[in-house]
Amino acid sequence: MAKEGVLTPQSTDFPRWYQDVVAKAELADNGPVRGTMVIRPYGYGIWEAMQADLDRRIKASGARNAYFPLFIPESYLHREAEHVEGFSPELAVVTHGGGKKLEEPVVVRPTSETIINSYFSKWVQSHRDLPMLLNQWANVVRWELRPRLFLRTTEFLWQEGHTAHADEEDARAYALRILHDVYAAFMRDVLAIPVVLGRKTERERFAGATTTWTCEAMMRDGKALQMGTSHELGQNFARAFDITYLDEQGVQTYAWQTSWGVSTRLMGALVMAHGDDAGLRLPPRIAPIQAVVLVVRDEEGVAERAATMCDELDAAGIRSELDLRTDTSFGRRVVDWELKGVPVRIEVGPRDLAQGEVVLAQRVGATKEPVALAELAARVRRALDDAQDALLAEATARRDEHSHEVGGVEEAIEAAQGGFALLPATALADGAETRLNEAGVSVRCIRRHDGSLPGPADGDEGLVAVCGRAY
Amino acid sequence: MAKEGVLTPQSTDFPRWYQDVVAKAELADNGPVRGTMVIRPYGYGIWEAMQADLDRRIKASGARNAYFPLFIPESYLHREAEHVEGFSPELAVVTHGGGKKLEEPVVVRPTSETIINSYFSKWVQSHRDLPMLLNQWANVVRWELRPRLFLRTTEFLWQEGHTAHADEEDARAYALRILHDVYAAFMRDVLAIPVVLGRKTERERFAGATTTWTCEAMMRDGKALQMGTSHELGQNFARAFDITYLDEQGVQTYAWQTSWGVSTRLMGALVMAHGDDAGLRLPPRIAPIQAVVLVVRDEEGVAERAATMCDELDAAGIRSELDLRTDTSFGRRVVDWELKGVPVRIEVGPRDLAQGEVVLAQRVGATKEPVALAELAARVRRALDDAQDALLAEATARRDEHSHEVGGVEEAIEAAQGGFALLPATALADGAETRLNEAGVSVRCIRRHDGSLPGPADGDEGLVAVCGRAY
Repeated sequence: MAKEGVLTPQSTDFPRWYQDVVAKAELADNGPVRGTMVIRPYGYGIWEAMQADLDRRIKASGARNAYFPLFIPESYLHREAEHVEGFSPELAVVTHGGGKKLEEPVVVRPTSETIINSYFSKWVQSHRDLPMLLNQWANVVRWELRPRLFLRTTEFLWQEGHTAHADEEDARAYALRILHDVYAAFMRDVLAIPVVLGRKTERERFAGATTTWTCEAMMRDGKALQMGTSHELGQNFARAFDITYLDEQGVQTYAWQTSWGVSTRLMGALVMAHGDDAGLRLPPRIAPIQAVVLVVRDEEGVAERAATMCDELDAAGIRSELDLRTDTSFGRRVVDWELKGVPVRIEVGPRDLAQGEVVLAQRVGATKEPVALAELAARVRRALDDAQDALLAEATARRDEHSHEVGGVEEAIEAAQGGFALLPATALADGAETRLNEAGVSVRCIRRHDGSLPGPADGDEGLVAVCGRAY
Repeated sequence: MAKEGVLTPQSTDFPRWYQDVVAKAELADNGPVRGTMVIRPYGYGIWEAMQADLDRRIKASGARNAYFPLFIPESYLHREAEHVEGFSPELAVVTHGGGKKLEEPVVVRPTSETIINSYFSKWVQSHRDLPMLLNQWANVVRWELRPRLFLRTTEFLWQEGHTAHADEEDARAYALRILHDVYAAFMRDVLAIPVVLGRKTERERFAGATTTWTCEAMMRDGKALQMGTSHELGQNFARAFDITYLDEQGVQTYAWQTSWGVSTRLMGALVMAHGDDAGLRLPPRIAPIQAVVLVVRDEEGVAERAATMCDELDAAGIRSELDLRTDTSFGRRVVDWELKGVPVRIEVGPRDLAQGEVVLAQRVGATKEPVALAELAARVRRALDDAQDALLAEATARRDEHSHEVGGVEEAIEAAQGGFALLPATALADGAETRLNEAGVSVRCIRRHDGSLPGPADGDEGLVAVCGRAY
């Protein structure tokens, strides 16, 4: 059906394909204020599924949800020097409220370290209060000059975790637990996106952090997308906001902290990691509709039979939807469900039904086969499991095929045009990162040669810089 | 335990009692920017439970969630004359973004009719697109001069539904479905708060609506709290934003619309409808912790036995928490759980355990009794059901006792000092509403004498104005 050309082909113009699919699958639309975004019901349904799964994992890691104000006094940002330097150029500033000019302007939160830590300083008193583990689901604002739906928007939705710990080891262990057990596990097991984990270079580090850990994925055009980060803040904010506790020896000590977040950017990753020229391909575990039951022609009680199939699928724990729009052409409806990336389509017509069959069409693999009615739920379940596995396998294979070990910076720049360049970290000395950046390539992360994370005492020897062009 | 005086007694100073309990039960704290609020984990857990229940009901009513931008161009608000007049004095205005002065200032949404309806005008084309039923969970900002946590805050969290329909009857039926089946049912069956339903007077109507329907509750000091509203917008916004559709006869027609919302104000209602001098009393269906298992002294394996009890309660679908803080005094912990309004407290000590018993203490009714271990889950379940019923019965009885039929405005003002005054609607003529307002009393809603809602053609005869002092 992709022949009909609803979308610009990926090979012709990947960014335009992205824009087309976000619009035509009804995921999102541009807002009236530059860089803002409307998330439409179909897109928001996917985001809600992501939120529900992540929220469960975050709570299982011990953090509790809370909510802090949107408005932060401008002066708060100035308390941590690197933080204000990093965020000042992107701030939205409220100067008037209730018809009057404000005495002190307030900024719309670009992230909430400053305001949350001003409360940690009240709430953290004794070692018994630690670790203090909080998370919030919120909107944040960072003024974007080159906005792109989901990837870079002036306002976006995210979760941001903020924690305080008694010592550095506990803070590091928690930052890494979130990175591994919450973020990377969710991305792999639910979104079917394999991620490379590593440490950011000093240049790419979060403003105010001592270490930024990151999940980096490869999109289908070979470019990298940062999907989530987990920061060790050291004692930077604890010193700026005076977060101290009385330790077991009765000594007043600064807390050690972390912060971590993933955002609606994950929506962009989902689109670009799996979509093809016919549209989205949603991993079944995140798909709001896992199987659509499409009535080809409503004759001889087909609609009723199809409704019964939906009930059976729902009863089997499969999220289904009934498509009764027989006044729209069959072909147009098929194109629409392919665009929306629904994993399984069940076509129900009078002739098949007479033979006790329906047609099961799979979005991943584009297969079509007759299935006996009695086996429907079991076959759909198997198709969903297969699609989930196939998408992860395909994305993993593509990433590995497009990752190349290189020896030097110029070679890395070349290799990064089509994927990831794996450069020995020792080659990063002497302004090499600047040279990469000038060529449009960045160091996505530093990891060990075997793919594991570097330890705090690791030297550059044995470490690899994963380089790529990036969203 | 209330004797210890952690809270100002309600009879001494109800507003101060409210402030005390919100702080000491760790529900919320003031934000640094005037009128903003930090919702702490315990308070946010209650809000999450409210959201989950309401979201299920809203989706069951056919609406889908979406998300629209926080920032609205100032010019959008001017398109509907009454709307801008109502909201202008409360706006927060962003004048600078990304380090530059903006060409057109943007307002932080005080509500989203204008921005959402600008998209409805694109999305609604044919009668087949109707009804279009959307909802969003979001933060909104209305500058507050006299803020109070949860009740009036500059930023608050809410859901706002926005719908478009083919005709007035369908719009009205949907606005009332939300009022009855979503809002009032949730408030009664989950929050255990009985509400009076009715229509707002012209003066109290939402800015831009043709009719505002409301849920009004009575707090324990006899004052009214507006808990939720559902508006018929007529064709006001459809005309302002050009939302038209081609009807079945091929005629271009303006849509009919509704909007409706409830907010974190519900948290304030929950506190003031049920709380007593010892603190919150949470209806079990909304309590994040339904039963706390409190280890009196950790001797002879008491802690392990208590942990097992928690597992058993969880397995029986009862949300439980284990209190092992034996280094804090028993009395102080009891005061704390009473403050937090946990419905059931199970006290576990070595002596009781030796007899195969624990002590079950109920927050509502303040009873304490020994319970055999084998019966624990069943007894806790019954205690929770009883508490849910008792709170609703108590709130209903209080409201009815403090509602008085009166004949005229002066009598209404007097009766409204201690509750609701039920005044014949015919007595509202000739500036009577102004007289009430000057005396600090407002018309909360108009309903029929039998408690049902007025129909569109009802005259004042047979209608009753429910008057009260209000939050």
